[in-house]
Amino acid sequence: MTDNRTPVTVLGLGSMGTALAEAFIEAGHPTTVWNRTASKAAPLVARGARHETAIADAVAASPLVIACLTTYDHTREALEPAAAALAGRSLVTLNSGSPAGAREMAAWATGHGARFLDGAIKNVPTAVGKPDTLLYYGGDRSVFAEYETTLRVLGGDTVHLGEESDLAALYEMAVGGTLLPALVGFFQGAAVVQARGLEAGTLVRFTVKWLEMINSILPVFAQEIDSGDYTKPMSTVNLFLEGAAYDEQLGEEAGVDVAWHAPFHDLLRRAVEAGHGDHSISALVEVLRKP
Amino acid sequence: MTDNRTPVTVLGLGSMGTALAEAFIEAGHPTTVWNRTASKAAPLVARGARHETAIADAVAASPLVIACLTTYDHTREALEPAAAALAGRSLVTLNSGSPAGAREMAAWATGHGARFLDGAIKNVPTAVGKPDTLLYYGGDRSVFAEYETTLRVLGGDTVHLGEESDLAALYEMAVGGTLLPALVGFFQGAAVVQARGLEAGTLVRFTVKWLEMINSILPVFAQEIDSGDYTKPMSTVNLFLEGAAYDEQLGEEAGVDVAWHAPFHDLLRRAVEAGHGDHSISALVEVLRKP
Ligand SMILES: NC(=O)c1ccc[n+]([C@@H]2O[C@H](COP(=O)([O-])OP(=O)(O)OC[C@H]3O[C@@H](n4cnc5c(N)ncnc54)[C@H](OP(=O)(O)O)[C@@H]3O)[C@@H](O)[C@H]2O)c1
Ligand SMILES: NC(=O)c1ccc[n+]([C@@H]2O[C@H](COP(=O)([O-])OP(=O)(O)OC[C@H]3O[C@@H](n4cnc5c(N)ncnc54)[C@H](OP(=O)(O)O)[C@@H]3O)[C@@H](O)[C@H]2O)c1
Repeated sequence: MTDNRTPVTVLGLGSMGTALAEAFIEAGHPTTVWNRTASKAAPLVARGARHETAIADAVAASPLVIACLTTYDHTREALEPAAAALAGRSLVTLNSGSPAGAREMAAWATGHGARFLDGAIKNVPTAVGKPDTLLYYGGDRSVFAEYETTLRVLGGDTVHLGEESDLAALYEMAVGGTLLPALVGFFQGAAVVQARGLEAGTLVRFTVKWLEMINSILPVFAQEIDSGDYTKPMSTVNLFLEGAAYDEQLGEEAGVDVAWHAPFHDLLRRAVEAGHGDHSISALVEVLRKP
Repeated sequence: MTDNRTPVTVLGLGSMGTALAEAFIEAGHPTTVWNRTASKAAPLVARGARHETAIADAVAASPLVIACLTTYDHTREALEPAAAALAGRSLVTLNSGSPAGAREMAAWATGHGARFLDGAIKNVPTAVGKPDTLLYYGGDRSVFAEYETTLRVLGGDTVHLGEESDLAALYEMAVGGTLLPALVGFFQGAAVVQARGLEAGTLVRFTVKWLEMINSILPVFAQEIDSGDYTKPMSTVNLFLEGAAYDEQLGEEAGVDVAWHAPFHDLLRRAVEAGHGDHSISALVEVLRKP
């Protein structure tokens, strides 16, 4: 069986790159690894990986090359000595970055004769290889078509968003905007219950349900936004604006700094001024868009 | 069977109060309803409810009285003519409000000889009565013990948080802090994909997974916060601060107003200044707490 598996090279053996390489090894792919700090390759070699200390040799070793460094800039910098080896290979980047960064990376890679895909891993390293783990890709559809089975080793929920090389970075931005705000909301809640001598842990299962509830209503908001019809609201902008007063009370009740809520109240007020008071809260998208 | 069910009175027949009354009727409880605007009682009467136009009569009709008006102030205002009827009954409030509001409500209700519970419904009206729907209560444990089966009609995940009457409002605040921030994050994402001619609907399933991922890591953050040990980070404050630069790029890329991110960047910087740069992002709780 092993002989049929596409040989893969993984560049970058940080927490995520290591998890990617492990998944390929586990799935029986001949796996070549490279890392700037060579010592990080040892545990993978022990599990069967081939280690190249020169990045050009690592790139030359496989038709499919997956890079998981910190940024596009670092990836290009690291790949410079391997540029000539890229011709005819498929390069897949799996780092975080901006759509502009992905477009530059694509231009550079295709300029050296590589086919290019850029992807994003929507999960933590320990989730790599699991059936439910989501990775999405944008870029050369022929690469995705040819290596889909191999890419699916990294996560069962593997999606090609479209031909444009910056789509994964774009969706990454679009999806990622909820992370820090949601976490800060949770940390604030932790401070609130701790102020009463209760454990932050008691909040987890309630917050989990709350985020599941939010998930259940997102399709409705998306439909309102896609249709531009905000006139059949589940929750209105005015209702949220009334709730804004509680943020102050929370600050006093629990000794928590609630200054971070101010821009949300500002958005709500601007939406009311724009005539959206009785519209669905999803009408906030109209004030977020710059004229 | 019906004869064994606790008679219940529901005060307030807005979207939520109506759903509560429907659930009790459905479960075979003798259900008395009252609403300021009497006409809203008609559909419930058609389904078997008893309707009282005087609130004192509605309160007198059942040992268990559930109020679902907009606020504690409105609830007290509405209940004033029924104050004498409250003695010996159990009053449960299920509106939104602050812990201070719940404490005042409790003092008023117990001052009139009622036993008191304050609760919160962590879901939408259409979820009332479902096995997974969460409601939590704070206040008189004897009320909860006596009527737990009846209260469970409103949602299978029914919890008593503790003896203090403001605990549901406190947890409500603690949990609710993620809602608007998470939604604004999603609306921003919708604006981003729309700026590329893509539908907001394409974002839903990715955001759903993303929030599920966040849910999966909350126990880790809660444990860090409860132990005060931020030194084994999954994601550091510094990593998030690096990511902050992308918010600006997102604004430019998609023509979206990203000013609402500024306080998050400010929190990150303050955490770094406080020595938490290499600590877990959950260390933000330390800067959210007022000294
Ligand atoms: N970890 C996660 O939870 C997670 C989740 C989703 C996405 N990601 C993304 O995956 C990417 C990698 O993350 P990670 O967690 O694996 O990071 P990491 O543990 O910090 O590893 C960074 C990797 O990049 C290499 N690197 C950095 N600058 C370099 C340069 N100039 N030249 C050569 N190599 C360089 C490092 O090499 P050295 O070993 O020599 O320093 C290391 O292999 C990031 O873009 C991250 O946003 C991570
Ligand atoms: N709907 C939800 O998704 C949801 C979810 C969780 C929690 N909640 C909470 O449940 C509570 C009720 O919400 P809702 O959605 O049912 O609101 P709603 O549809 O606006 O209904 C409000 C109810 O309060 C009554 N009311 C308001 N002021 C009054 C006053 N001064 N005197 C007498 N009655 C008064 C209204 O009577 P009239 O009919 O006479 O105006 C109506 O019965 C709120 O605290 C809300 O935050 C709602």
